[in-house]
Amino acid sequence: MTEPVAISETERLISSDKVEGTRVYNRQGERLGTIRNFMVNKQSGRVEYAVLEFGGILGIGNEYYPLPWELLTYDAKQAGYCVDLDKTRLEGAPRYRDRDPLWDEIYGQQVYGYYGVTYPLF
Amino acid sequence: MTEPVAISETERLISSDKVEGTRVYNRQGERLGTIRNFMVNKQSGRVEYAVLEFGGILGIGNEYYPLPWELLTYDAKQAGYCVDLDKTRLEGAPRYRDRDPLWDEIYGQQVYGYYGVTYPLF
Repeated sequence: MTEPVAISETERLISSDKVEGTRVYNRQGERLGTIRNFMVNKQSGRVEYAVLEFGGILGIGNEYYPLPWELLTYDAKQAGYCVDLDKTRLEGAPRYRDRDPLWDEIYGQQVYGYYGVTYPLF
Repeated sequence: MTEPVAISETERLISSDKVEGTRVYNRQGERLGTIRNFMVNKQSGRVEYAVLEFGGILGIGNEYYPLPWELLTYDAKQAGYCVDLDKTRLEGAPRYRDRDPLWDEIYGQQVYGYYGVTYPLF
């Protein structure tokens, strides 16, 4: 099988499948989890949230934290995203466990509000 | 293992991993291929291209067509994307095989230009 040599990242762009599974660290270098997936606005093509997966063993007890895309900065040295977020701040953050939230605008405003990021017009 | 019941799509949003692997049809109902991945602008969080994978057997001879996100409309009946694109038009379209293109703005303008879509400011 010949797979193309994928340029999964340039200075400007990143491939969707490279984002998924990428580790997330905070500025203290603590590992917060990995990006499970991200939600794209169908109309505008803008990413509305990335979903950070955290905790649990073998998928049991995992928790999912929607994060505004703006929070994520890729750090080549750590080969992961670096987020300005300490663990106590994450502990109080909007999250879900067994079932995805409804992803409506009210939820969006809650999430962005928690992180002090202006909820964009998608 | 307990995986959450993922709402992979709402009226507004679609999950990244649902986009990948989705079949693409044209208006004549012909299958054009599947979405392999898509490229996101790291800064703005906007999707710049979806990559349509087409042809080949077991990965040999596949070709990859970058498409402006705006071209894709999800059609629940076909459980796939519907694109206004006949096969002859696709045959002349920008594509790559063994190696991803450089994904710079010149390339972006070529791709968007081919499909008659204004290249947005990302």
